[in-house]
Amino acid sequence: MARILRRSFTAILLLMFAAIGLQAQTKTIAERLGYPADSKLLIIHADDLAVAHSVDAASFDALNKNAVTSASIMVPCPWLNEVAAYAKDHPDADLGLHLTLTSEWKIFRWGPVESKNKVTSLLDPSGYLWPLTAQAASNLKPEEAEREIRAQIERSIALGIQPTHLDTHMGVLFSRPELFAVYAKVAHEYKMPFFSVKIPGLTDKLLIMLSDKDVVVDSVVMANPTVHSGEWKDFYVNAVKNLKPGLTEMIVHLGHDDAELQAVTLDHPDYGSAWRQRDYDFVTSAEFKKALDENHVVLVKWKELKKLLN
Amino acid sequence: MARILRRSFTAILLLMFAAIGLQAQTKTIAERLGYPADSKLLIIHADDLAVAHSVDAASFDALNKNAVTSASIMVPCPWLNEVAAYAKDHPDADLGLHLTLTSEWKIFRWGPVESKNKVTSLLDPSGYLWPLTAQAASNLKPEEAEREIRAQIERSIALGIQPTHLDTHMGVLFSRPELFAVYAKVAHEYKMPFFSVKIPGLTDKLLIMLSDKDVVVDSVVMANPTVHSGEWKDFYVNAVKNLKPGLTEMIVHLGHDDAELQAVTLDHPDYGSAWRQRDYDFVTSAEFKKALDENHVVLVKWKELKKLLN
Repeated sequence: MARILRRSFTAILLLMFAAIGLQAQTKTIAERLGYPADSKLLIIHADDLAVAHSVDAASFDALNKNAVTSASIMVPCPWLNEVAAYAKDHPDADLGLHLTLTSEWKIFRWGPVESKNKVTSLLDPSGYLWPLTAQAASNLKPEEAEREIRAQIERSIALGIQPTHLDTHMGVLFSRPELFAVYAKVAHEYKMPFFSVKIPGLTDKLLIMLSDKDVVVDSVVMANPTVHSGEWKDFYVNAVKNLKPGLTEMIVHLGHDDAELQAVTLDHPDYGSAWRQRDYDFVTSAEFKKALDENHVVLVKWKELKKLLN
Repeated sequence: MARILRRSFTAILLLMFAAIGLQAQTKTIAERLGYPADSKLLIIHADDLAVAHSVDAASFDALNKNAVTSASIMVPCPWLNEVAAYAKDHPDADLGLHLTLTSEWKIFRWGPVESKNKVTSLLDPSGYLWPLTAQAASNLKPEEAEREIRAQIERSIALGIQPTHLDTHMGVLFSRPELFAVYAKVAHEYKMPFFSVKIPGLTDKLLIMLSDKDVVVDSVVMANPTVHSGEWKDFYVNAVKNLKPGLTEMIVHLGHDDAELQAVTLDHPDYGSAWRQRDYDFVTSAEFKKALDENHVVLVKWKELKKLLN
């Protein structure tokens, strides 16, 4: 009799775990956050903080106005201490790290945080990080990329920043499965959510490394060089109208079209200073707010997603 | 007889060397350059190129207008490649290296060129170069300072810059005899003249390390915090009027008083962005040109002084 009871108890436990597993698998991120399953969740995310004062000034302003929900920081860049000071004054700001393994501009460059001789595969012949994602992808030793991203996280923490999430500048950590594995491993260790996105046929081989507990973004909205400068608002407003249930991240690049940012982005109109001014003008516009309201978009921050990991 | 001849020959040779030595000791730099012995020679020198785009833009403009004769570059700073591009387009520009062992601003910082683990005494607790000269002076190991200044010279050469001279940001290499010895040793090795100045009671113990062949500046003109902003032109015009025969270096800090430079120099009006705008306005003014003409000042460049070393 005791044996039968034990067996039944085990069977019930197994069924319970299976049910929980099924529930965890089928619950959407919206439900996990306490919203209806078919909510349209949106993170409005400003990239590249610390790269230039112009970018910082525009991004801080957008964060202060709640025009963006979140942002991420380029730790190797010279304006990091400006962002650290902002973080100290705005402890509620949703600031993650834009893990940086490239230095892409023509006359404004940076190197790694880690000692150069410990990350030699990250360096171009001039001693700066590689300019292009493809160059980084073909040269980076995963163990050296790991060393560098750990150094970036540790430096930010040492400066008093409490990163809410991680993402990857120019997608370098998506460029090879070994690099994505390093990204996931370090993020798991630091218990931080990290940006990844479902793109069927493209990211499947990366996402199989993740568990149901990981937060995976369903889709991304980002302006690209096919968008004409005169159609900037239309592009974004249409994207908001077409949002689907699930978690979307809108990635914006904010800045002011001033002398500094014109020089940083020299000879590179894509993601250049006028581009960043347009992004800033749009996210702080009344049209954007109206589109978000009319389409019943639920704004979320990475710090809320971080809580799902605990 | 042969012996007597040999002795006489030796005596004549010794006398010749003594005469040459005496001549070298007594010839002024003006004479060595082919000017009358009592000429008032002036180098007008813009410091800090590469620290900020604003500084580069103002300094390039002043160089192009011959409003300054010379400038020097901070190799660890992010805008180095902007200066390298300028140097390529202006092969006659008189550009030296402003050997940099401090990172003094509040929210805009930089680290060394060398691998950090090879120059740990140069780093503050955040991993950037020390902010203050006194901190650098008390922490720097001379062999690590040497390693870093060699790395700065090599990086500049690798980027196509052909430095005409060396000097020392915030005077760090004057702060201890062992550091000055490293500075002189490396400069001699690269056959570059390097800035040093006769200040009785202050630099004597450094200058005894040098030979007659080294170029030593007789005096320096530089604005300082006791000069009221309204008296900027008077300060410089009086300095020009009071120039004495010999070699003077007028050290100026050029920049535009814009958003970038205001942020770089945050909370530090001395040598701040308004200060640099005043310096730029003065060196490019008609009053300055008039004062130089009226006082028969001979402008010289470090590249002319470099020729004296060969």
